[in-house]
Amino acid sequence: MAGKGEASRAPDVAIVMGSQSDWSTMRCAAEVLDELGVTYEARIVSAHRTPERMYRFGRTAHEEGFKVVVAGAGGAAHLPGMLAALTHLPVLGVPVKSRALKGLDSLLSIVQMPAGVPTGTLAIGEAGATNAGLLAAAILALSDPALSRRLQDWRAARTEAVNEAPED
Amino acid sequence: MAGKGEASRAPDVAIVMGSQSDWSTMRCAAEVLDELGVTYEARIVSAHRTPERMYRFGRTAHEEGFKVVVAGAGGAAHLPGMLAALTHLPVLGVPVKSRALKGLDSLLSIVQMPAGVPTGTLAIGEAGATNAGLLAAAILALSDPALSRRLQDWRAARTEAVNEAPED
Amino acid sequence: MAGKGEASRAPDVAIVMGSQSDWSTMRCAAEVLDELGVTYEARIVSAHRTPERMYRFGRTAHEEGFKVVVAGAGGAAHLPGMLAALTHLPVLGVPVKSRALKGLDSLLSIVQMPAGVPTGTLAIGEAGATNAGLLAAAILALSDPALSRRLQDWRAARTEAVNEAPED
Amino acid sequence: MAGKGEASRAPDVAIVMGSQSDWSTMRCAAEVLDELGVTYEARIVSAHRTPERMYRFGRTAHEEGFKVVVAGAGGAAHLPGMLAALTHLPVLGVPVKSRALKGLDSLLSIVQMPAGVPTGTLAIGEAGATNAGLLAAAILALSDPALSRRLQDWRAARTEAVNEAPED
Amino acid sequence: MAGKGEASRAPDVAIVMGSQSDWSTMRCAAEVLDELGVTYEARIVSAHRTPERMYRFGRTAHEEGFKVVVAGAGGAAHLPGMLAALTHLPVLGVPVKSRALKGLDSLLSIVQMPAGVPTGTLAIGEAGATNAGLLAAAILALSDPALSRRLQDWRAARTEAVNEAPED
Amino acid sequence: MAGKGEASRAPDVAIVMGSQSDWSTMRCAAEVLDELGVTYEARIVSAHRTPERMYRFGRTAHEEGFKVVVAGAGGAAHLPGMLAALTHLPVLGVPVKSRALKGLDSLLSIVQMPAGVPTGTLAIGEAGATNAGLLAAAILALSDPALSRRLQDWRAARTEAVNEAPED
Amino acid sequence: MAGKGEASRAPDVAIVMGSQSDWSTMRCAAEVLDELGVTYEARIVSAHRTPERMYRFGRTAHEEGFKVVVAGAGGAAHLPGMLAALTHLPVLGVPVKSRALKGLDSLLSIVQMPAGVPTGTLAIGEAGATNAGLLAAAILALSDPALSRRLQDWRAARTEAVNEAPED
Amino acid sequence: MAGKGEASRAPDVAIVMGSQSDWSTMRCAAEVLDELGVTYEARIVSAHRTPERMYRFGRTAHEEGFKVVVAGAGGAAHLPGMLAALTHLPVLGVPVKSRALKGLDSLLSIVQMPAGVPTGTLAIGEAGATNAGLLAAAILALSDPALSRRLQDWRAARTEAVNEAPED
Repeated sequence: MAGKGEASRAPDVAIVMGSQSDWSTMRCAAEVLDELGVTYEARIVSAHRTPERMYRFGRTAHEEGFKVVVAGAGGAAHLPGMLAALTHLPVLGVPVKSRALKGLDSLLSIVQMPAGVPTGTLAIGEAGATNAGLLAAAILALSDPALSRRLQDWRAARTEAVNEAPED
Repeated sequence: MAGKGEASRAPDVAIVMGSQSDWSTMRCAAEVLDELGVTYEARIVSAHRTPERMYRFGRTAHEEGFKVVVAGAGGAAHLPGMLAALTHLPVLGVPVKSRALKGLDSLLSIVQMPAGVPTGTLAIGEAGATNAGLLAAAILALSDPALSRRLQDWRAARTEAVNEAPED
Repeated sequence: MAGKGEASRAPDVAIVMGSQSDWSTMRCAAEVLDELGVTYEARIVSAHRTPERMYRFGRTAHEEGFKVVVAGAGGAAHLPGMLAALTHLPVLGVPVKSRALKGLDSLLSIVQMPAGVPTGTLAIGEAGATNAGLLAAAILALSDPALSRRLQDWRAARTEAVNEAPED
Repeated sequence: MAGKGEASRAPDVAIVMGSQSDWSTMRCAAEVLDELGVTYEARIVSAHRTPERMYRFGRTAHEEGFKVVVAGAGGAAHLPGMLAALTHLPVLGVPVKSRALKGLDSLLSIVQMPAGVPTGTLAIGEAGATNAGLLAAAILALSDPALSRRLQDWRAARTEAVNEAPED
Repeated sequence: MAGKGEASRAPDVAIVMGSQSDWSTMRCAAEVLDELGVTYEARIVSAHRTPERMYRFGRTAHEEGFKVVVAGAGGAAHLPGMLAALTHLPVLGVPVKSRALKGLDSLLSIVQMPAGVPTGTLAIGEAGATNAGLLAAAILALSDPALSRRLQDWRAARTEAVNEAPED
Repeated sequence: MAGKGEASRAPDVAIVMGSQSDWSTMRCAAEVLDELGVTYEARIVSAHRTPERMYRFGRTAHEEGFKVVVAGAGGAAHLPGMLAALTHLPVLGVPVKSRALKGLDSLLSIVQMPAGVPTGTLAIGEAGATNAGLLAAAILALSDPALSRRLQDWRAARTEAVNEAPED
Repeated sequence: MAGKGEASRAPDVAIVMGSQSDWSTMRCAAEVLDELGVTYEARIVSAHRTPERMYRFGRTAHEEGFKVVVAGAGGAAHLPGMLAALTHLPVLGVPVKSRALKGLDSLLSIVQMPAGVPTGTLAIGEAGATNAGLLAAAILALSDPALSRRLQDWRAARTEAVNEAPED
Repeated sequence: MAGKGEASRAPDVAIVMGSQSDWSTMRCAAEVLDELGVTYEARIVSAHRTPERMYRFGRTAHEEGFKVVVAGAGGAAHLPGMLAALTHLPVLGVPVKSRALKGLDSLLSIVQMPAGVPTGTLAIGEAGATNAGLLAAAILALSDPALSRRLQDWRAARTEAVNEAPED
């Protein structure tokens, strides 16, 4: 797994996560971005084990050409909020489900940011990762009519896929 | 209180809330957008008492020219998620502090959206409303270099305002 | 699976749910209505993926001839409350057990409705679905003496089925 | 305070509560029933201090002519569930806000009933009491077209009362 | 499984539970009473499905000769508190682990009793059932020196069984 | 404040608490014991600040002539459980309402004891203290017919004091 | 308020906090260090508003001569954990009581650190700040016999200050 | 498993736990101390089943030569706090994951200590045990430059082990 995108253009979305084990959740963000044709790059940036890498990434994400940062972390989940402190790009946070408290700790650690440093937080776990990808796409679509069209088609397809009656 | 913006251009941000009582929280979003020179309009759109108005707003927000929707609600807070179901614009949700459960119900009702329909959720209460305004600005700044500059200045000013040592 | 009922009479209860996966819970409502001889129809109506279908269903449930709406949803569970906003029929809500927070999010999203728009909320999961069916039957029994008799018999049978002493 | 209703007809709704102190919450149910012209009677029936009275009330509520029972209680709130065990009438439960746990204990004690004995549970506190009155009215309206009309008017008036924009 | 005790003397402890499924938890109470030579009888007494049986049991437990009541229940666990309302004997409550909320609902439903009607509540699940047996024995030992001696021996044996160092 | 009782007989109940500030809660236990004519003595025994005093008290409570120990504590409330480890007398625990978590921490610290060392836990705060007094009385009444009579009278008086209808 | 200590020796403890408003809590740490004669310096270091200052502080705290870091923060409280990632000095965390969730968010954000980066976490609020000061002193006392003596005296004085009986 | 250390020098860290079953968690503390070359001894010291052993251990840990105490316990987890009351050595607490409440009860029982008696609390479960070992090492490293060097190398190795990109 690595960055993904057309030839020379830098990817639009950075998907960062605190550890390899978060990837099984965060790949849902990558998958929906693939479906929507949004370029992204996935990196492991640990707030706690690689604070310098996190610092550099946060301070240069804008110069690297990223437009939206999607960050996932679990437990005392500091990565999304710290990146939000380091960059003025929009940061979306995904609470990864933790072992003991099932992601409630991750959720509160990401969403309860003080005034001044926002993280747009999504649901706990895989649904949240998918939704972080979708929200990143909706943000990029504001200045990309073709992506806006693909996003609307994606949503319409999902609406049509819902059956009228449940099946046994 | 009403919409705010330069002459003929439609406002960029819609600040919607479920009831008049939410305004004491949601005005924090308006205030930071004022500081950053972002145009917005505030409306009361109740998912439960005015579902038609909500439905119309959600379906036409894009055509009205809004680019980002900031929605605040408390308790069984359905407004942000329902708007996210109705528009493909980015929707940011603010959990208003509720009386009995202090906004934990509001938070879970907004953030725990199923895969497919994202709401970027901020902190409970006034800090969350301020941050919804800031995140909306960060989103708009992606295609507005002047706003990006104002946002970075705003952040820098806040950094400088932090004293080195606490005062008695 | 589909609607169920005597020949030409419209079913009395609508069992609606946000997705196919909720059916494993909501079928408990259907089963108890079958036992009690109450007609019903089960539909998938997603507040988030099919908001128009939900809107239409809510606004016309009364005209279609339904008398009670039983709605199940999980996570940020908006379906019961939104239907309660759209219809003046009694709406009963079933919190489906969610993956991370075990249905606590579903429960709070359904029960904590603002004054003016009630949802009668049952327990999390299968017990709640069974009870939604029973409460719907109790409501219908107010004007259906034969059903009232069947409901009392059903309850009496359950009382008799309780052993005096536990068995190893 | 006492029962309320037209001349010789027995009241339709019983509003019961565990103690005098619950009345400041439960009067919200009485008030909305008054507005809708639904007859009711309010009684103090404590599951814990007057179990015989509760037992008698539950077993005879049907014969007394009540059609819906609205029961409020706080803390280890057993009244709604016990009444649901004693009567086959629909029972609606209102979790009264408790001192230490703010009604979370009341809510769980009322809503988490086992399969077989439903309580339709409303929100914690005054909003829940108002909504219990409204849901009782919606149930009675199924066989009372005039009440159904009054209920729809009540709802329409509330919709119209929502301003378009917040006021400072 | 049934009552247990010496010849003609009535058993000292009643172990009651809401359903057969609670027995896998409550048998821990029976086992420790067996070890301590305390007589008991186990019964299924459902507050919700057999309210009359509960009522009779609560009102006559004293006359039957029981001295302590141990009651286990899960979810909206009303049995211990209702028995405490019906008898002046000491009632000990065991919160049975529930499926969705893991016994937190059971615990709050049992322990948060209003002033006037106490239930001595033990831990959630099997540990709580064992401890209910032990606490019942400690209560009975106040007027039974031989049992007091057996209880002290049981405790001493447990102390001696604790190794000094953990084993791999 | 001090011990209370008839001339030379040692008091039956020890009311112990972790600090002076717990007395405003624990005096409710003393008051109900006064009403019932049960002798008691109140002491401050801090598990954390006076562990030796706690140790001595726990090991000698039986010899001092106490029959039941009522212990209140807040936060990481270790006093009831530690006393239960030190004495074979019945120990009843009262979770004192804590500042940040409103007594939920106190409750869990007292009630979630491991198998082998029971604390009979009452509700959070003043209701729990009153109930600890009542449960202590119920335990003592098992071998004191006069107290049993007074306890039954106390309960009957409370039942009679409940009005039929709420008063405005 | 500022650093405190003997002439030329650098202070032993750094008390850092995210904002001026945390000082009303964190001054409890300062006060107990004053009582024990431990030198300290208090600084405002915001993880979110001054990430560079935090970074520099964390990386140089050791060189500056600090031996223990006491860090307080509220809500999504990232300061203690981020400092623990940046320094190999012992870091003690104090969860400041937050407005909506009363410090439960602060507590989980500080304590639930991943393996590899510890923060020794104290209680929510002022008690936790006092205890952070005491634990810092206990750590420093390991290589400072005079401080160890003062700490033991401080503890003994507190033990002696506990009355035997509560006072009205 | 037993004590570990060089010839005649007493071990620096005591790892104590309430029962054999806690060892599967607490061995993580032992393992990291092994990696760092810190001597330790592991003991089972139950606050509830062996209060005398706990008392002796707490009062003599200092004389035995221990410098830091790491204590793990689950449920109503009293061991860390009681040891903190008995010794003036630094005490670090590890909340062991409990069956019903997943360690939330253990966490609150350990961390919410009153002012005067600190326990430095780590995360729930194995991560917390590892971190207790690391924090103990960081404390010892303050007066052991060689250990400080090993600790910094251990941390650097972990930083280097973090990949830049996630792997499928």
